[in-house]
Amino acid sequence: MTFIRNRWYVAAWDGEVGAAPLGRKICDENIVLYRKLDGTVVALRDACPHRLLPLSMGIREGDALRCRYHGLKIGADGTPDEMPLRNDPINKKVCVPVYPVTERHRFIWVWIGDAEKADVELVPDLWPCSAEGWTFDGGYTHVKCDYRLFVDNLMDLTHETYVHSTSIGQIELMESPLETRVEGDRVILSRWMPDVEPPPFWRTFLGKEGRVNRWQICEFIEPCSVIIDVGVSPVDAGDTLESHDSGVRGFVIDSMTPETETSCHYFWGMARNFATNDHGVTLRMKDQQNIVFGEDVEVLEAQQRSIAENPDMRLRVFNIDAGGAHARRVIERLMADG
Amino acid sequence: MTFIRNRWYVAAWDGEVGAAPLGRKICDENIVLYRKLDGTVVALRDACPHRLLPLSMGIREGDALRCRYHGLKIGADGTPDEMPLRNDPINKKVCVPVYPVTERHRFIWVWIGDAEKADVELVPDLWPCSAEGWTFDGGYTHVKCDYRLFVDNLMDLTHETYVHSTSIGQIELMESPLETRVEGDRVILSRWMPDVEPPPFWRTFLGKEGRVNRWQICEFIEPCSVIIDVGVSPVDAGDTLESHDSGVRGFVIDSMTPETETSCHYFWGMARNFATNDHGVTLRMKDQQNIVFGEDVEVLEAQQRSIAENPDMRLRVFNIDAGGAHARRVIERLMADG
Amino acid sequence: MTFIRNRWYVAAWDGEVGAAPLGRKICDENIVLYRKLDGTVVALRDACPHRLLPLSMGIREGDALRCRYHGLKIGADGTPDEMPLRNDPINKKVCVPVYPVTERHRFIWVWIGDAEKADVELVPDLWPCSAEGWTFDGGYTHVKCDYRLFVDNLMDLTHETYVHSTSIGQIELMESPLETRVEGDRVILSRWMPDVEPPPFWRTFLGKEGRVNRWQICEFIEPCSVIIDVGVSPVDAGDTLESHDSGVRGFVIDSMTPETETSCHYFWGMARNFATNDHGVTLRMKDQQNIVFGEDVEVLEAQQRSIAENPDMRLRVFNIDAGGAHARRVIERLMADG
Repeated sequence: MTFIRNRWYVAAWDGEVGAAPLGRKICDENIVLYRKLDGTVVALRDACPHRLLPLSMGIREGDALRCRYHGLKIGADGTPDEMPLRNDPINKKVCVPVYPVTERHRFIWVWIGDAEKADVELVPDLWPCSAEGWTFDGGYTHVKCDYRLFVDNLMDLTHETYVHSTSIGQIELMESPLETRVEGDRVILSRWMPDVEPPPFWRTFLGKEGRVNRWQICEFIEPCSVIIDVGVSPVDAGDTLESHDSGVRGFVIDSMTPETETSCHYFWGMARNFATNDHGVTLRMKDQQNIVFGEDVEVLEAQQRSIAENPDMRLRVFNIDAGGAHARRVIERLMADG
Repeated sequence: MTFIRNRWYVAAWDGEVGAAPLGRKICDENIVLYRKLDGTVVALRDACPHRLLPLSMGIREGDALRCRYHGLKIGADGTPDEMPLRNDPINKKVCVPVYPVTERHRFIWVWIGDAEKADVELVPDLWPCSAEGWTFDGGYTHVKCDYRLFVDNLMDLTHETYVHSTSIGQIELMESPLETRVEGDRVILSRWMPDVEPPPFWRTFLGKEGRVNRWQICEFIEPCSVIIDVGVSPVDAGDTLESHDSGVRGFVIDSMTPETETSCHYFWGMARNFATNDHGVTLRMKDQQNIVFGEDVEVLEAQQRSIAENPDMRLRVFNIDAGGAHARRVIERLMADG
Repeated sequence: MTFIRNRWYVAAWDGEVGAAPLGRKICDENIVLYRKLDGTVVALRDACPHRLLPLSMGIREGDALRCRYHGLKIGADGTPDEMPLRNDPINKKVCVPVYPVTERHRFIWVWIGDAEKADVELVPDLWPCSAEGWTFDGGYTHVKCDYRLFVDNLMDLTHETYVHSTSIGQIELMESPLETRVEGDRVILSRWMPDVEPPPFWRTFLGKEGRVNRWQICEFIEPCSVIIDVGVSPVDAGDTLESHDSGVRGFVIDSMTPETETSCHYFWGMARNFATNDHGVTLRMKDQQNIVFGEDVEVLEAQQRSIAENPDMRLRVFNIDAGGAHARRVIERLMADG
């Protein structure tokens, strides 16, 4: 197994789940998701307990799903509301696993592991996706690679020079020194650039002239998210690496939910605290991210295939891989704990 | 193994096999079928005994097949008529298995098992497909599911409500009581509806007014066929469940020959004893069956995939599954015997 | 394993390898090929020693390949010229296997086995491909079969009658007696036709009237090549099977490099010592070979599939298969030696 049990995983964007059932495999488990009439989300094993037809092929009736094969009607609690022959006594032992599910930070999260251990306080803290004064949007991409290859990728910004040479690579700030630190299960890569000229993009949104402090801070949040804090603030505001809310700030949000050992669901987006009502900015950022992340996906899928093709070779860790290596150690330790 | 040995299996419709060789895998064996000049059918292992090129790629010469690689000419008895070098002495030890084959009820049947046990008297009795006063036609569909899932499906009419909701489902007669009985290796599900109003379809073909007795009788015929006897006759004719030939009668014919453990050849059709010369009725019935069975195929292939995806779950048996469960017990018993 | 180690294998046509890296799997090893600025060819394992991205996706810089993921720059000796962070000390232990490579007879050859045993004197002697007074051209086809099935095919000319019935088959000379002999690791099939009428093709190029001696000599050259010497010379020139350069002569060249156990790279062509400056003849011969070999490929891929589908059957050896059988014995003996 390559993923941590007893964790919340992003199963979908909030807008992906509605009245119609959505089937998605999470950590090797087939799950069906849908919203009840009250708007809350249900997550069940995606197989009718009768003859195993996917419930995601079923018919929504009230808060239940009726299997499209023989009509066993499964309620949101995973047990039958009605047997195939409507007058038959209901056998509550005929049921499917129910997955704890919650909605937070624009995502639908499912708990993979022992249901009784689920606690919504344990949802990874992707606060910029839902905080007051911030806006957040993004997209979804299915990727045929182990999610840990994606964590490696995001916990290192060196690759931008080559993978993203035609989009965002070759940025001079890649030259600045980077610090890596581990705080419990968090891994943080930070680059603080004091007293620099702001690049055009940030100057526009900052809305004032003068030199700035600038930062890029990648953080691995177990089990499988990476968020990247980026922005600038005026030098005279006195911001620090620890506290920097005086200017304009954004977060690149990445959550890579394992689908199988060698594939993942990639949820990506951008949160920002500036121009929050400008939908045009939102669309342009989403559009650019789609291109940039497409470049990563091409490389990651080729890397996954090459790992399979060269079983005598192993991944090496250079200094630039420190972030990913720390993140993998956290994952391994937490898998062993589970 | 999931199928019974020492049985006749439908390999093809009569019209599918002609002078040109047809390759088809039956019960995990690659077989080539063709008609001799006298019209009788030959079934051989579909691999040249020389270098294993499929004989179905070969060239028909008289009653023999000449391999398209080196020209070994294999006669209808599976032994060479001519070696690749025409003057070489013929080595009769270089041969392929010959499958007993017979043509009956509009189908070509091959015997899977020990050839010496083959007996044409053992061909499943699909009599309505060939009886005097009856007409029969249908089609072929390749289905990626274990043939036993298809037997389950056909030995239960409950699924019509949901699987066929847009075609033949929701019929009120689904509410009538159903009786299941096992007679040796036969499994019979019957529904006798005495003294009812005939539905429009049957009234038209019965050709007279008045109340009728109506029936639906599903029968599993091992190793892998299900036939469904349907029809109506005038109440005053005094027909019974056991004998009901005073009105109009049809048989839905289904034979699901295993191809592999997880795929089968589905031969389906409709036999009837009314309007036997009306080709338009034949075509419309075939057309409707094609739509209805397409709905089954979609569900069955999804079920097969879901079984593979959810190895921790198992098929459950409700009352409505009694027919299929009995049929599976017959299959298991006969597999153990073989 | 199905192939001989410590041998040179054709990896590509000379013209396939240029400045841009070419990825190709040879004997189950992923290899990247490219030309240095001095025109010589480099062959490396096609996986960056850092994170395994194929180097064939990389960027050519001078005589090195820079990985497109993190920019590790690998020189032609397989070791780094530059680390991802340019100022990091170069770690020469981070390296990829380098394959001995040489260019001869219009092909790029790589050595599969222990690099220290590589010796260019061991390159198979396909002399007509590069000799003075000869011209040679051909093509490449990827084939989904064990390369030994292709050797079988080429070491027997009987198959032409059936496989090539619409192109070159049915030639009367197929009737002439064929001699097989083994000389060490060479297997030779020869057919000498003294004092015959030349067919139109050869008469045209011979350029004179009168009866000729004609020959067809297939030779298996381990590990995986077959060359076929064909031609005619005037009877009064006194040519023999051993020495026959007084007329017009050509060689069909075939080299089948294993890709995996069940697929190979087929390099084919025609060398000739007549009309060597007539490019039109070259093109027509290439065009015809492409059609003829396409017929072989169809049969060989079907044969490979049939071998997998009929595990209870085995390939048989008839007299016509003597050439292939001898070649397989050579291969087996040399595999055992390696």
